[in-house]
Amino acid sequence: MLIGPLKLKLQLVCGDSFAMGPGKADLLEAIDREGSIKAAGRVLGMSYRRTWLLVDEMNRCFSERLVDTLAGGGRERGARLSAQGRTVLEAYRELEAVTAQVTGSAAYERLVAGLLDQPRPPKSGSAVSEPAPPLR
Amino acid sequence: MLIGPLKLKLQLVCGDSFAMGPGKADLLEAIDREGSIKAAGRVLGMSYRRTWLLVDEMNRCFSERLVDTLAGGGRERGARLSAQGRTVLEAYRELEAVTAQVTGSAAYERLVAGLLDQPRPPKSGSAVSEPAPPLR
Repeated sequence: MLIGPLKLKLQLVCGDSFAMGPGKADLLEAIDREGSIKAAGRVLGMSYRRTWLLVDEMNRCFSERLVDTLAGGGRERGARLSAQGRTVLEAYRELEAVTAQVTGSAAYERLVAGLLDQPRPPKSGSAVSEPAPPLR
Repeated sequence: MLIGPLKLKLQLVCGDSFAMGPGKADLLEAIDREGSIKAAGRVLGMSYRRTWLLVDEMNRCFSERLVDTLAGGGRERGARLSAQGRTVLEAYRELEAVTAQVTGSAAYERLVAGLLDQPRPPKSGSAVSEPAPPLR
């Protein structure tokens, strides 16, 4: 999430897995919109395998699955968010919004007071104050 | 920054560069402690070249350099934080602390209400609800 020059990333950890994060939130939204894991992955430009693994990772990190899959004959027949899935998605987006408010803090003002829009170009021949890194 | 199960990452963008972030904040602290870019990199397990590039990236993103280098004969003779460097480092740490307070929000409570400590193991033979991803 980018708010002006501030990039904010919120993730939920569950053991060695990530239960939620920006990509997983986007995936939940796409599943909600598309009604299928496969279609959601396609919209987001991910392989079905990767999409499925992300859904499985989320599902196993919460007390109730976030995504319910309708399956038959070993194939996906559609998917939708569970009540828990909707709660988690909405709470994640709300937490992002709450977090974005830190840009109103005095600390943020001090942090960005001297920040430039673009980096200055490297000085040429400034060996006095900036020793060149060793070549390799 | 990890606060319970919440992982928070704050970065400052400057064009295509990152002006500040968790690694750069650690680097500023190490330079302040060690009094040298080389020694700071060593403490953090980075090559001198990478350390120097990170310092240069920060320096070029702010109106005043964050790190002043004492150099002579093309070699680093020590480095220290400028006034701006100290301001930016302190403001970044303070912004992290302010941001950490979002764990007191209602959105955060709803987000983690169903979160497990560890992911449930994958179900075996559950082809009905979880179609196996295609092998490759």
